[in-house]
Amino acid sequence: MTVKRTRGRPPAGDAADRRAAILDAARAQFAAQGFGGTSMRAIAREAGVDVSLISHYFGDKSGLLVATMELPVNPIEKIALVIKDGPDGMAERLLRTFLGAWDPHRDVFSSMIRTTLGSGDSQAPMLQIARNILIAALLEVLDGDDRELRASLIASQLIGMATMRYVVRLSPLADAPIDEVVRLYAPGMQVLIDS
Amino acid sequence: MTVKRTRGRPPAGDAADRRAAILDAARAQFAAQGFGGTSMRAIAREAGVDVSLISHYFGDKSGLLVATMELPVNPIEKIALVIKDGPDGMAERLLRTFLGAWDPHRDVFSSMIRTTLGSGDSQAPMLQIARNILIAALLEVLDGDDRELRASLIASQLIGMATMRYVVRLSPLADAPIDEVVRLYAPGMQVLIDS
Repeated sequence: MTVKRTRGRPPAGDAADRRAAILDAARAQFAAQGFGGTSMRAIAREAGVDVSLISHYFGDKSGLLVATMELPVNPIEKIALVIKDGPDGMAERLLRTFLGAWDPHRDVFSSMIRTTLGSGDSQAPMLQIARNILIAALLEVLDGDDRELRASLIASQLIGMATMRYVVRLSPLADAPIDEVVRLYAPGMQVLIDS
Repeated sequence: MTVKRTRGRPPAGDAADRRAAILDAARAQFAAQGFGGTSMRAIAREAGVDVSLISHYFGDKSGLLVATMELPVNPIEKIALVIKDGPDGMAERLLRTFLGAWDPHRDVFSSMIRTTLGSGDSQAPMLQIARNILIAALLEVLDGDDRELRASLIASQLIGMATMRYVVRLSPLADAPIDEVVRLYAPGMQVLIDS
């Protein structure tokens, strides 16, 4: 059954259409220019909307990047929770939050990794999230020398573990309880956070 | 110019042909049955050679597996050097040896990772090497509880770091000097070795 629309009232699909137009424009620009080279204003122009509508739907540019990936987990919210209590015990919080969020969606994570590494595209959305959300958040928390290199090594440990657990399904890591993985893996990661 | 072969003397290509037949049979059986399910005897039968010829060319089954991959680096020799001095300082030796061997061949490593993760094949040759050579060697050295899980986590750290350095080329890890990576990354890996 279809309902005839009243003239003058915007069609019900319009909000969804505008949202989709913004996401399409954002995907194209992130892919072409990378996160740093993309502006909200240029996306708004391409999508034919006012820039305030992007902020209204997606918050900031990081939120927009995450929205383009249609993930079952919002990494911005998760990472914000992890880093807000500072470097003490952060490895344990980071691992526990990460595994708690992605264990139920391991197939999605696996498919993201396969697509990202298979494409050879340095601007793949997952890599933009790793650099501009995960590593950017780590840099807010890390003190001391070599912060950039340590942040990229912490990301290596996290993504390496997840790749072995979810993609390669290496035994016994693939099926080990979260508590066990956190107990054994967090101390080595905390060394990188504290060093 | 071609040289006519003397009757009765085996053609010059024969040794190379037999070697190639063994490698073809080995690739097929490792792919179908995995490392554990493959026997040297079955490979010899399929290749139409005596099993002693396989040992003569390739040593043991691990040597044969490595030979099927035609790598620029022999992981068996490298890992043997790393583990022969035991767990003390092993993270530093493992990382320095790994990076020293693969930095000059980062494109080969990158292509292996892409192929392995892209294929979704749990018997991919690189994974068989990870499980049956790298992790098997770590298990010879590790003491204490949870050895299997710790070995798979150490492999995660190593392969995660190499994936970020060689495949993703994450800055600044991609271009950091080996000494810097070893200095920052080894202590956290040593925690897993010692725990």
